[in-house]
Amino acid sequence: ALTGPDAHHLAHVMRAKIGDTVLLCAPDATEYTGTITAIEPGRVSFTVSEGLPSTAEPRTEVTLFVGYPKQGKLEDVIRHSVELGVSEVVPFFSRYCVAAPKKEDAKNERYRRIAAEAAKQCGRGVVPPGLPLLELPQALEQMQRTGCPILFYENATAPAKQVIAKARESGKELEIAVLIGAEGGFDEDEVALAMEHGCHILSLGKRILRCETAPLAALTILMYETGNME
Amino acid sequence: ALTGPDAHHLAHVMRAKIGDTVLLCAPDATEYTGTITAIEPGRVSFTVSEGLPSTAEPRTEVTLFVGYPKQGKLEDVIRHSVELGVSEVVPFFSRYCVAAPKKEDAKNERYRRIAAEAAKQCGRGVVPPGLPLLELPQALEQMQRTGCPILFYENATAPAKQVIAKARESGKELEIAVLIGAEGGFDEDEVALAMEHGCHILSLGKRILRCETAPLAALTILMYETGNME
Repeated sequence: ALTGPDAHHLAHVMRAKIGDTVLLCAPDATEYTGTITAIEPGRVSFTVSEGLPSTAEPRTEVTLFVGYPKQGKLEDVIRHSVELGVSEVVPFFSRYCVAAPKKEDAKNERYRRIAAEAAKQCGRGVVPPGLPLLELPQALEQMQRTGCPILFYENATAPAKQVIAKARESGKELEIAVLIGAEGGFDEDEVALAMEHGCHILSLGKRILRCETAPLAALTILMYETGNME
Repeated sequence: ALTGPDAHHLAHVMRAKIGDTVLLCAPDATEYTGTITAIEPGRVSFTVSEGLPSTAEPRTEVTLFVGYPKQGKLEDVIRHSVELGVSEVVPFFSRYCVAAPKKEDAKNERYRRIAAEAAKQCGRGVVPPGLPLLELPQALEQMQRTGCPILFYENATAPAKQVIAKARESGKELEIAVLIGAEGGFDEDEVALAMEHGCHILSLGKRILRCETAPLAALTILMYETGNME
């Protein structure tokens, strides 16, 4: 059975009726076809089919580490990234971040809701978790544990294609971690620290993308090159 | 010499001084290094270097035909698309467009300003022109004249990679036209009409992208696959 806001949404916004079928997703990205058997206040009950793995979930795990941006830009980045197939979005703080994070608890609740709505809307099998704000060194430590850590940097010249293709061909189940700076970009020290943590320092091309465009371009390239946009 | 708002911006916002050097772009995407020789009210004068072709301009012309979306979404699509290297953004109206275009003259002025700002910010050599709203059949007629017309459609299954790679390998100077629907998507009739006009009907993958995300993903893939994100 569904309860809470999802039950309300289904019964009162979508106006579902007994006998209607609905695609239901479990937290492990298993999908079930549910047939509604009862609609009660705050509760919709189903019989469910045998579960199948979600076909919309990418086969490659990509975690996005994103520099804490100004204004409401993080919301847009989360919304777009979830659609594009991100596994997790992790905001981080670095030297030239100009935004001052405040009321983060209330915001985290809002970020989770945005991620859930985007996941439903695009048909994903799981909702990427909203994660707490890190400092850059902590973010780099987490990235170091993945198979393919990448920093996209405006002063880099190395194209992304070879690195991604090589990682893909390694045959292992691929985990990619990608780091994109906020409006102020990075200090050279910070880029050196990323290199020490094993990051590939790559370019997104000669046009300087804004901090809210770069994550979307990066995720699209990663998903495309790993065969997850087909 | 620069005059008008650009002169004001340079003298009063950027606080340029005599002797400072500035990158200047002509409408044909030629770039000049200018050295400021005089700053007068409403006018900044330069001596300029020999002109060189802009390195930020993509070598592939991609025109984006975008279904007229609700609210301010077209502004975001224009801003992101210019950064990603689009040649022209052409909005069109089709059966399931839900927005009612109004005050288009005032909006077109605003769209041109957004395109100009985005071009300056990302370092492009030209400002993509803002173009008037078309009906879908007119848009398809224009697309038919390009070497590679593509409709990205949520019910399509053919991946983009082969079509783009094949077009790129044709050796001709490549012009791509890409069409993305508004919130309401397309009627099957409209997709059939696009096929009659030679469009490749391609998929952006199994996650259904919103109408403001799909153009950015499409442009990123096209620019990446044609080597214009390096």
